[in-house]
Amino acid sequence: MSKKISIAIDAMGGDNSPNKIIEGIKLFLKKKSSHDDFILNIFGKEDEIKKKIKELNISQNNINIFNSDKVISNEESPLTAIKNSKNTSMWDCLQHQADGKSDISLSAGNTGVLLVISRMILKMMEGVSKPALAGLWPNDKGLNVVLDLGANIDCNDQNLIDFAILGAALFKSLFPNIEPVVSLLNIGSEEIKGTEILKKTSQQLRNSVNKKNFTYNGYIEGNEITNGKSNVIVSDGFTGNVALKTAEGTAKFITNNLKKSLTENLLSKISLLFSYFALKKFKEKLDPRKYNGAILLGLNGPVVKSHGGIDSIGFYHSLDLCYRIIKGNLMSEIKKNLNISKVE
Amino acid sequence: MSKKISIAIDAMGGDNSPNKIIEGIKLFLKKKSSHDDFILNIFGKEDEIKKKIKELNISQNNINIFNSDKVISNEESPLTAIKNSKNTSMWDCLQHQADGKSDISLSAGNTGVLLVISRMILKMMEGVSKPALAGLWPNDKGLNVVLDLGANIDCNDQNLIDFAILGAALFKSLFPNIEPVVSLLNIGSEEIKGTEILKKTSQQLRNSVNKKNFTYNGYIEGNEITNGKSNVIVSDGFTGNVALKTAEGTAKFITNNLKKSLTENLLSKISLLFSYFALKKFKEKLDPRKYNGAILLGLNGPVVKSHGGIDSIGFYHSLDLCYRIIKGNLMSEIKKNLNISKVE
Repeated sequence: MSKKISIAIDAMGGDNSPNKIIEGIKLFLKKKSSHDDFILNIFGKEDEIKKKIKELNISQNNINIFNSDKVISNEESPLTAIKNSKNTSMWDCLQHQADGKSDISLSAGNTGVLLVISRMILKMMEGVSKPALAGLWPNDKGLNVVLDLGANIDCNDQNLIDFAILGAALFKSLFPNIEPVVSLLNIGSEEIKGTEILKKTSQQLRNSVNKKNFTYNGYIEGNEITNGKSNVIVSDGFTGNVALKTAEGTAKFITNNLKKSLTENLLSKISLLFSYFALKKFKEKLDPRKYNGAILLGLNGPVVKSHGGIDSIGFYHSLDLCYRIIKGNLMSEIKKNLNISKVE
Repeated sequence: MSKKISIAIDAMGGDNSPNKIIEGIKLFLKKKSSHDDFILNIFGKEDEIKKKIKELNISQNNINIFNSDKVISNEESPLTAIKNSKNTSMWDCLQHQADGKSDISLSAGNTGVLLVISRMILKMMEGVSKPALAGLWPNDKGLNVVLDLGANIDCNDQNLIDFAILGAALFKSLFPNIEPVVSLLNIGSEEIKGTEILKKTSQQLRNSVNKKNFTYNGYIEGNEITNGKSNVIVSDGFTGNVALKTAEGTAKFITNNLKKSLTENLLSKISLLFSYFALKKFKEKLDPRKYNGAILLGLNGPVVKSHGGIDSIGFYHSLDLCYRIIKGNLMSEIKKNLNISKVE
């Protein structure tokens, strides 16, 4: 690729910003020290950003800093967001992207506001009925893309088909050598199961989707999300959000119980000496920071939302995700999928 | 209680029946050897049942055996169930209960058929709009009741309010000394979050529910199911089923990864010697067999569905659940809740 990957970063969103953002950027620059194929456009309070960059001894190659005086508060409601968010660091990122100067935006700020103003500034992509928020989810073979995670409570069959197209394109951009296999999240695997909307979606995916771009694998139940037989899992935003949060809660519940068991007496504490490396590897594989970053798809350009409470390592992973998405040509993958699926 | 607790057991449902059923009954009788407050009414192929009872040396005190020649197949569809299920062991259990000779029915057979014929034979309870399938779910403080787990895909506000009433009564019957705290499963905790149906339900629960029988705690997200702040979690059957299955899948995914990590090299294998008892306790706490048994509520009598693939220990737990539900006067708890909540 001759053109550099250009990422707009909101340095002010989330807890402990801009410090953790700049620390995450430092980590990214270190890992990419042999690459010269990207530009980071950092938006926020210039003085604070520059101070932190100096403190951390970060080289300013591949970095542009843009001053944005205002910051969106975490308490801001999506209803008043448009009025109150002009000239904030988040808004300026999206405007930079809309002007064609960045390929993707990344923010750890207020999710509701980000969804609303992204849609307003970047606008819907032609041929897509609704945007969707996608996430990465570990499975037995690697990673799933799961969407929608909460951008849309009510979805019709056309929305779900669009999510399949968007999700398959995202998967392809991240894992170019693996075929996307799409499934619909349902409460049974038989064709008669589920809502009328799911039945209509399933039938249309079976009948009309060009098999070259992704395979459609039918319905799966919640316990099959992690088995690796599908890698793009489609759902309305209500169900997807409940599934994601329930999985997060269950993971935390189990690992907390494990921790308690392994530290409750001397014998079990001794065992930790021997299992240290095994448990460390286990913990690393399931570290939620590795999966940080929800991707808003369906607009004229992707937007990544980092978790607001995550640390610099988590922020690094969401920045790396931005890089990989653009490197994998997400937007042209989406266009390819849309064009093929519209010609029936 | 002077009247004995009378449980109708379908001996033929699920895998490896009647053997695992009779083995589960043996375990129950052993644990209850000092009790004489129950009768088990066992339905199925009399010869097979008697043979197994003899083989296991089970005393026939507190046991009645009833011959049912037919068994419902696992492939039977709910649509043809009524025609094909007459005089099966499952049907005969429910008829025994409807005739007032058993207080509760227990089956490990076909779930769809059990839901359909239970409703037909036992009939809806007066004042309840829809029946619901409830399950037990471990949390940081003990156990939750979660419902509906899949009996109803579409639910309106009245259905969800009924589920709150039914779930709180079930919790009270199982844990008489703990106050039921009801929450609605949603995708955010603010009042503006979620579907219109959830908003209407929440408002009505806040306004009209008599606080004496349960507390209403507002919305929770999926990651709060296990935190123990609520103990009765209400949802439509689609969302509830996805949440339950996702939690099961996540638990399995994590424990499989843990197992893999702890057995991958000599050092980690040595650690197992030291952590054996700690890990055993951890495993026992999360053993899904302990939570076996979904409870169908809202009919003129409760029905418990055991997992079809579970072993005799799992079946024992669902039988013990039946005993505890009746011992805790579930039906009068439901009537109490219904009466209070109807008088506004």
